[in-house]
Amino acid sequence: MYPFEYYIPTKIVFGEGTVKRTGEIASGFGKKAMLVSYDEDLIKRIGFYDKAMEPLKAAGIEVFPLFGVKSNPDVSLVREGIKICKEQKPDVVIALGGGSVMDTAKGIAVGACYDGDVWDFPTGKAEIKDALPIMTIVTIPATSSEMNPTSVLNNDEIRRKDGFVSPLMFPKVSILDPELTYTLPMKQTAISAADIVSHLMEGYINHKVEWAPMQDRYAQGMIRTIMDSMDRLQKDLLDKEARAMFMWTATFAWNGFYVCGLGAFDQIIHIVGHSFSAFYDVPHGSAMSVSIPAVMKFHLDERIEKFSGFAKEVFGIEGDVSKETAQKGIDALVDWFKKIDVPVTFAEANMPTDELDAMTDDILETAERWGTTSYTKDMIMDILKLAI
Amino acid sequence: MYPFEYYIPTKIVFGEGTVKRTGEIASGFGKKAMLVSYDEDLIKRIGFYDKAMEPLKAAGIEVFPLFGVKSNPDVSLVREGIKICKEQKPDVVIALGGGSVMDTAKGIAVGACYDGDVWDFPTGKAEIKDALPIMTIVTIPATSSEMNPTSVLNNDEIRRKDGFVSPLMFPKVSILDPELTYTLPMKQTAISAADIVSHLMEGYINHKVEWAPMQDRYAQGMIRTIMDSMDRLQKDLLDKEARAMFMWTATFAWNGFYVCGLGAFDQIIHIVGHSFSAFYDVPHGSAMSVSIPAVMKFHLDERIEKFSGFAKEVFGIEGDVSKETAQKGIDALVDWFKKIDVPVTFAEANMPTDELDAMTDDILETAERWGTTSYTKDMIMDILKLAI
Repeated sequence: MYPFEYYIPTKIVFGEGTVKRTGEIASGFGKKAMLVSYDEDLIKRIGFYDKAMEPLKAAGIEVFPLFGVKSNPDVSLVREGIKICKEQKPDVVIALGGGSVMDTAKGIAVGACYDGDVWDFPTGKAEIKDALPIMTIVTIPATSSEMNPTSVLNNDEIRRKDGFVSPLMFPKVSILDPELTYTLPMKQTAISAADIVSHLMEGYINHKVEWAPMQDRYAQGMIRTIMDSMDRLQKDLLDKEARAMFMWTATFAWNGFYVCGLGAFDQIIHIVGHSFSAFYDVPHGSAMSVSIPAVMKFHLDERIEKFSGFAKEVFGIEGDVSKETAQKGIDALVDWFKKIDVPVTFAEANMPTDELDAMTDDILETAERWGTTSYTKDMIMDILKLAI
Repeated sequence: MYPFEYYIPTKIVFGEGTVKRTGEIASGFGKKAMLVSYDEDLIKRIGFYDKAMEPLKAAGIEVFPLFGVKSNPDVSLVREGIKICKEQKPDVVIALGGGSVMDTAKGIAVGACYDGDVWDFPTGKAEIKDALPIMTIVTIPATSSEMNPTSVLNNDEIRRKDGFVSPLMFPKVSILDPELTYTLPMKQTAISAADIVSHLMEGYINHKVEWAPMQDRYAQGMIRTIMDSMDRLQKDLLDKEARAMFMWTATFAWNGFYVCGLGAFDQIIHIVGHSFSAFYDVPHGSAMSVSIPAVMKFHLDERIEKFSGFAKEVFGIEGDVSKETAQKGIDALVDWFKKIDVPVTFAEANMPTDELDAMTDDILETAERWGTTSYTKDMIMDILKLAI
């Protein structure tokens, strides 16, 4: 195991009906809040806006809403939110939504305390020194953003998707009310499931620690739990137990816990997938379900033991440590992606293949920024070809 | 799943050599520290005192040491520490040791900010309203006290062992330097392993949630990891990877994470085991290895599915869900306890059997205070008899 620091000071408030505690919890930060969310019509029509606003009003909190966050959230809306914050000076920024909304809220919270442009943070031009307190009310469990210090934003102008990290971006409190996920359509639930699995696979298959039974078993158990939850949800989309389990598993899939001690590892699944989203606005989870099998196939020969273990522990595939068993594990994962109806190829994700060269360059640029130097242009091209 | 709040603000600093950061980290709290530890001669002889003191001195921190913490720590030393704190007014209380030392330091930290007697907290006579900051440097990984808000103390005068809880007792920072565990003798390592397994078994086998795949798999994986670590340590007590894995697994075994969503469950393994320690000063882990199989045997008939799953997932025992498979799981656990040479009966733990009646009363009293009402005197007596 490698040395590490673990620090996650976010308080989680989990359970059906906990959205009602929004006012009481927000009061702890002050009397003025910015509420960040998706499309105004949608969030009002499905009733979530009222669910969050009523307790806020009852607690006497003045709220400035900012609607319009899209998947792969663009930095332009973050800039708009920062401008409003600098005028209105809220005491807390509340995200009501999924990863895109939470990441937008995080960008606003740090940008509101900085004089320059917020894109200076992902590019490393500036360091985050202060932030408004962040609260989240999760409606799409997928990214763990509710319990991690990371924000990932798109910059459509320059076709770039990038992340930045600061302990100041840990939400102070995250409300996880499974009730807000009961109406999430199957399509979006499945894309989220692929996203969660990508978080668990990233560290699990790419780390270089020879013996990591705690971390590996955790990842395997969490992947199996998402699969079990999806089995139940495919039978009954309103299965409350499955919705709750899915939500809690999502939160602890990418909050930094299970990768403790694994050292730095190449986040090649995400590096590749981020380009899919930056180039063609593919939803993050769908980019992941295309990226994961391609990355696994590319590394098959040198990771036979790891992938054989994956086949056995996740899918119960019998067999010795061999290329055949390892391949069966990849096949089983592809079958599962197909079963939940998420794309596993460029075509299925509606991505053209005429910009592979530009995409390869983009992936290499991201890789360099993320400290991943073990992939050449040819290797990236091979991975992309395995995804076609 | 049941509603819950999750909040663990402790920062973990993990890795070989991290004890050297003690001074830098303690400086964050001020210039005066109380250092709580075991027997003075022992802690100096094994070099740990110097390892902690040198960086503290280098950082210009004035230290008041308090030595003499024993296993099943008595409240009398806590009272002594509180008296010193009230005079010396340290900025931080640093525990250098295992669970007993950390729990003593926690008692001192809260008692120093309270006018009455510290035993008022376990009895519920007073509420914890303030505490000195707590730091820990772990030398015996076992109790998770380095990452939880609990202190368990003995009161030898009244032969009572009891716990109390407050978010103010979360250590601010815990230094987990595996190097400090390399010299831990096998006997004590094995007792700690039994303790850690008891933490994982307590929630896992006693919770009443029908479907908890995330929590159950986590517990299974963590138990297997402790067993794998012990296998390596029985071959080589200086196996650094096994020491590190053991240490991190211990911390995350009872910090409140895996029991999230499981609701309240009877902590009957600990309730029974605490009396063993209170009556005969049996080390906590040894009390647990006697208690666990007895509790499992007592509940065998109504938990066949759970115990069959335990047999399969932890020990790889093939077989259908049946009493036979469930029994094989219990037998395999007993065999493992024997393999690591911890007691599984009263006799092996050097406990007489002539106070069973008084012990039963004591157990029932603890059970009532812990909110466990599902056991009668006869049932407790049956459990004890299964341990003889």
